[in-house]
Amino acid sequence: MTPIKLLILPGDGIGPEVMLEVRKVIDWFASNRGLAFEIDEDLVGGASYDVHGTPLTDAVMDKAQSVDAVLLGAVGGPKYDVLDFSVKPERGLLRLRKEMDLYANLRPAQCFDALAEFSSLKRDVVAGLDIMIIRELTSGIYFGEPRGIVTEGNERVGINTQRYTEAEIARVARSAFELARKRGNKVCSMEKANVMESGVLWRQVVQEVHDTEYADVELSHMYADAGAMQLVRWPKQFDVIVTDNLFGDLLSDAAAMLTGSLGMLPSASLGAPMENGRPKALYEPVHGSAPDIAGQGKANPIACVLSFAMALRYSFDLGDEADLLEASVNDVLAKGLRTPDLGAGEGTRTVGTAEMGDAIVEAL
Amino acid sequence: MTPIKLLILPGDGIGPEVMLEVRKVIDWFASNRGLAFEIDEDLVGGASYDVHGTPLTDAVMDKAQSVDAVLLGAVGGPKYDVLDFSVKPERGLLRLRKEMDLYANLRPAQCFDALAEFSSLKRDVVAGLDIMIIRELTSGIYFGEPRGIVTEGNERVGINTQRYTEAEIARVARSAFELARKRGNKVCSMEKANVMESGVLWRQVVQEVHDTEYADVELSHMYADAGAMQLVRWPKQFDVIVTDNLFGDLLSDAAAMLTGSLGMLPSASLGAPMENGRPKALYEPVHGSAPDIAGQGKANPIACVLSFAMALRYSFDLGDEADLLEASVNDVLAKGLRTPDLGAGEGTRTVGTAEMGDAIVEAL
Ligand SMILES: CC(C)[C@H](C(=O)O)[C@@H](O)C(=O)O
Ligand SMILES: CC(C)[C@H](C(=O)O)[C@@H](O)C(=O)O
Repeated sequence: MTPIKLLILPGDGIGPEVMLEVRKVIDWFASNRGLAFEIDEDLVGGASYDVHGTPLTDAVMDKAQSVDAVLLGAVGGPKYDVLDFSVKPERGLLRLRKEMDLYANLRPAQCFDALAEFSSLKRDVVAGLDIMIIRELTSGIYFGEPRGIVTEGNERVGINTQRYTEAEIARVARSAFELARKRGNKVCSMEKANVMESGVLWRQVVQEVHDTEYADVELSHMYADAGAMQLVRWPKQFDVIVTDNLFGDLLSDAAAMLTGSLGMLPSASLGAPMENGRPKALYEPVHGSAPDIAGQGKANPIACVLSFAMALRYSFDLGDEADLLEASVNDVLAKGLRTPDLGAGEGTRTVGTAEMGDAIVEAL
Repeated sequence: MTPIKLLILPGDGIGPEVMLEVRKVIDWFASNRGLAFEIDEDLVGGASYDVHGTPLTDAVMDKAQSVDAVLLGAVGGPKYDVLDFSVKPERGLLRLRKEMDLYANLRPAQCFDALAEFSSLKRDVVAGLDIMIIRELTSGIYFGEPRGIVTEGNERVGINTQRYTEAEIARVARSAFELARKRGNKVCSMEKANVMESGVLWRQVVQEVHDTEYADVELSHMYADAGAMQLVRWPKQFDVIVTDNLFGDLLSDAAAMLTGSLGMLPSASLGAPMENGRPKALYEPVHGSAPDIAGQGKANPIACVLSFAMALRYSFDLGDEADLLEASVNDVLAKGLRTPDLGAGEGTRTVGTAEMGDAIVEAL
């Protein structure tokens, strides 16, 4: 079998620590499931800036384009706050998303039963929660031109542009409808069509794609502010949510927090199929680089491990292996193991990053 | 004493019903506190469109400019979804905000003790919560040009522009710092400076205004996605939050929902001082027009009543009267009276809109 080519970009902060644990999981699958991996590792974000003066070199960009999947840790940190906008760690990640054309960002917000108590929301509001946010990831105000800070008269003016083409909206809508068919068959699309013309177009195109190609899926529309509210009020009303880049950024973070376990949540960013039929893909935890706890061995590796489970599922069609890995994570939690971010309670035992990783491998 | 001139714009959906109860409260203050009001009432939103073909006539706009304060109910409804963007009910409200130059939107998110159980969040997370979101209301992507839906090649493209000038950021920052001084003396500013240049400028200007004019106030900065998350995780960490028009729309709705009582939350939109020293001002509940329950006499009038309390406080410097009105609302809740949106429990009694309004007047 041709080995699966992975590019690992641990990045900044807790990125390297949590990625070490993913390596253990990958090794287990190589040794025990006959999977062959060809792994390359390189720099992104501040780590790349420190060495190369840029958050992503062209060489790494080229590698990312040629592998089967990229696994990313996290980027950013206060050390880089003073940097010019163009070389901030985040630009490395944004360049990967844009040039690999990873337009569909899948962010599951799942509440793990063992952790339901730990949410700031009431147990009955979040227990069993399982929603999927599909965020458009390559367009909108993140990338639109013109942009910048200009001087007009004697004052500075900050400018960004939200721009969505019909094709950009249609393709991410398709991703949402396809996923919905494999889940609860329900899509809620969110925008501000009452205020923004780009939202009017968004709503129209999502509706058109639905009516012509996915009439079997239940579709509703909601203003993004009402969406933020409903996510807090009764998140179980949703199955799949599809929304633009900026709204998706805020709404998926709020949704992640509902589960009480940001350190648990993975994400997949998918583009068009490559020659081998696999989608261009990058997998990363939803959490950031958490500079405050970096290097202390207390970071939760589960989000990064579950991102690898998403890679097994969405890039390599290894659904059984993904199920196995997810079940192992569940086992470890059920046994009471908790990294510090997950709190403590009766019957739990607080462990560090490496011990959590080892326990997951053990459970496999 | 010169009478206080009010323009009442009940608007759509439940707007007219809840405004009727505010009228009772105004009458009470006129009869019992020697306050003189000169009240005019007119149309806005869909109600105006139905009669005049526009969501706000020039005549009403002129009136709004000349009164001491505008009280607004709510605008919008599914009936108007098919209308062209330019005459949607929301455009009436947006025109009022823009032409009156109401740049500082004050949205308190307060958890009423009697209602803490009703939040989807755990009691200890929200009980006693008292934060103030200051949302910039006259600029940003709501109003920036160019905007629209254009055809490029053979596809449609939706465009909106986020534009913030230094002066626009500075003045709303000042509003936030001034308010913070009267509260917990802490401001958290939210943007996406890691992704948007308009966010970079926002952060810089807020910091500059702080350093030169309000160094005594504690200032922090947070990315808006992290802000959405922290609002759900532990909202009591905040005192005053200042943010732009679009982020403010989402974040304040999420914050409102934390309190479990959207039907309770008022807002004030303030501009520059007029000749008489009072700020241009519009007061409205945070909730929408709730078309699903309109006309049934079950809407909660409290948000609209408390918006009038904000008018007493911020427009007319009648802090004692505002306190009295707020205390009366608390009394009524403590007695167990609840409109249907507030749920029911031991010792509560479900009442309609009019009965709730009467009880508040009674408590006064
Ligand atoms: C790090 C940052 C550029 C990024 C974003 O804003 O998209 C992050 O918040 C995310 O959600 O992946
Ligand atoms: C009705 C609508 C135009 C408005 C907005 O988006 O500002 C509303 O959501 C609000 O928050 O006041």
